[in-house]
Amino acid sequence: MSTPLVATNSRVKEARKLSRRSVRTERRLFLADGPKAVEGALSIEGCVVEVFATPAALEHHADLLAGATVTLVDERALASLSDSVSPAGVVALCHHIDAPLADVVTASTRLLAICADVRDPGNAGNVIRTADAAGADAVVLAGQSVDAYNPKTVRSTVGSLFHLPFAVEADPATAVRAAQARGLTVLAADGSGEVDLFGADLAGPTAWLFGNEAWGLPAELAALADHRVAIPIHGRAESLNLSTAAAVCLYASARAQRT
Amino acid sequence: MSTPLVATNSRVKEARKLSRRSVRTERRLFLADGPKAVEGALSIEGCVVEVFATPAALEHHADLLAGATVTLVDERALASLSDSVSPAGVVALCHHIDAPLADVVTASTRLLAICADVRDPGNAGNVIRTADAAGADAVVLAGQSVDAYNPKTVRSTVGSLFHLPFAVEADPATAVRAAQARGLTVLAADGSGEVDLFGADLAGPTAWLFGNEAWGLPAELAALADHRVAIPIHGRAESLNLSTAAAVCLYASARAQRT
Repeated sequence: MSTPLVATNSRVKEARKLSRRSVRTERRLFLADGPKAVEGALSIEGCVVEVFATPAALEHHADLLAGATVTLVDERALASLSDSVSPAGVVALCHHIDAPLADVVTASTRLLAICADVRDPGNAGNVIRTADAAGADAVVLAGQSVDAYNPKTVRSTVGSLFHLPFAVEADPATAVRAAQARGLTVLAADGSGEVDLFGADLAGPTAWLFGNEAWGLPAELAALADHRVAIPIHGRAESLNLSTAAAVCLYASARAQRT
Repeated sequence: MSTPLVATNSRVKEARKLSRRSVRTERRLFLADGPKAVEGALSIEGCVVEVFATPAALEHHADLLAGATVTLVDERALASLSDSVSPAGVVALCHHIDAPLADVVTASTRLLAICADVRDPGNAGNVIRTADAAGADAVVLAGQSVDAYNPKTVRSTVGSLFHLPFAVEADPATAVRAAQARGLTVLAADGSGEVDLFGADLAGPTAWLFGNEAWGLPAELAALADHRVAIPIHGRAESLNLSTAAAVCLYASARAQRT
């Protein structure tokens, strides 16, 4: 077995630079941290360049890493590649996996989530995880949304980043029009929307449009949607957390489409 | 107008000690940070001891603070009382507001959320906020759940901590039995539950039992519930985030109870 690389090793240092969005974007590479993310990455052909693992993690995750290109690193080097407070010992260096918009919004798409300017990594990751759970076909991260490859986003998807296709689209309106062109009804999640979620017809192919956690959807973008849909608020709360609202909407669609 | 107190002032120092759970518990006091929380606190008679405010915030929130006992503090003193990265200038020193279990679980309770060992402040706060939005009557924080008065919990309720009654109960089984004794059907949210959420009869008075974000509900506690209910997972996600799952369950109940 080769000697584990240390934190000052040039390959480890190069990989560590991927903590910066500009470097990730330029190289189209990112780090997938922890066994769940590594497992997801390895399930996609051609995604993983190499897996950094400590000797202990290599032993512990022998099944997971069988057949993978593994580079041994020491504990400190591994920790320098992880933004977790308690790194699990495996980090995969991966190629970007987002697909063109036209590939993720197709005539067979039944349920789609479009995030417009969702800025919090935990929220974006949680929307991707929930979209996966609800059986959505794909996710679009549009506008000024957080980088899908941000370590916090990747972690909060708990592997779902690798489970369903996603696209990155600078202009949210383009994503909305693409969905409409493929026959999807676009529903803007909007606390002041004119349609009550539980009165909405959700049986057909649907794209949900979710806005920024603080200021919601810009009026002109919401106006592009076919309907603006509000989750009823029965108590005195003013609103719901963005990813919470997305979950209620996506599961209402899953229920309507599958019964 | 009096001179604003500085961070080394003894009253400010005493209030600052409330960042520690042990001090909050002993004194049955806590800090409510930001205009939304202060507004909620002021809406409950006898809750607020005094509001610390900067001169600028006092001017900006004059309507909110009209009639309140306000203590002027300088920016640094205010920041020392807030755990927010950008303090909004108002922090209320409040009496604890949790009620006895028998007062929040009554014969007229229709929808209740019981958190058993929910440890993350953001998750617990988000469950309280969602319970409020879904029109739940009350929340019980049971077992080793995070302190309801933790600043992060208070903040993530976005005011809802003050909107619906809640109880703190050391033994989750006691909370379950109290709900059953008042005629509520107790449903354990459990990924491996025998009942599908969207096939469940949710029209009657219901108490939802939510477990720890990492390990879920202990088997013996889940067994006490009347049914164990799973949210269907249609994709490849292994599970849902705790507060996301709670939102899907609570809104399924709200929908069934109100139509």
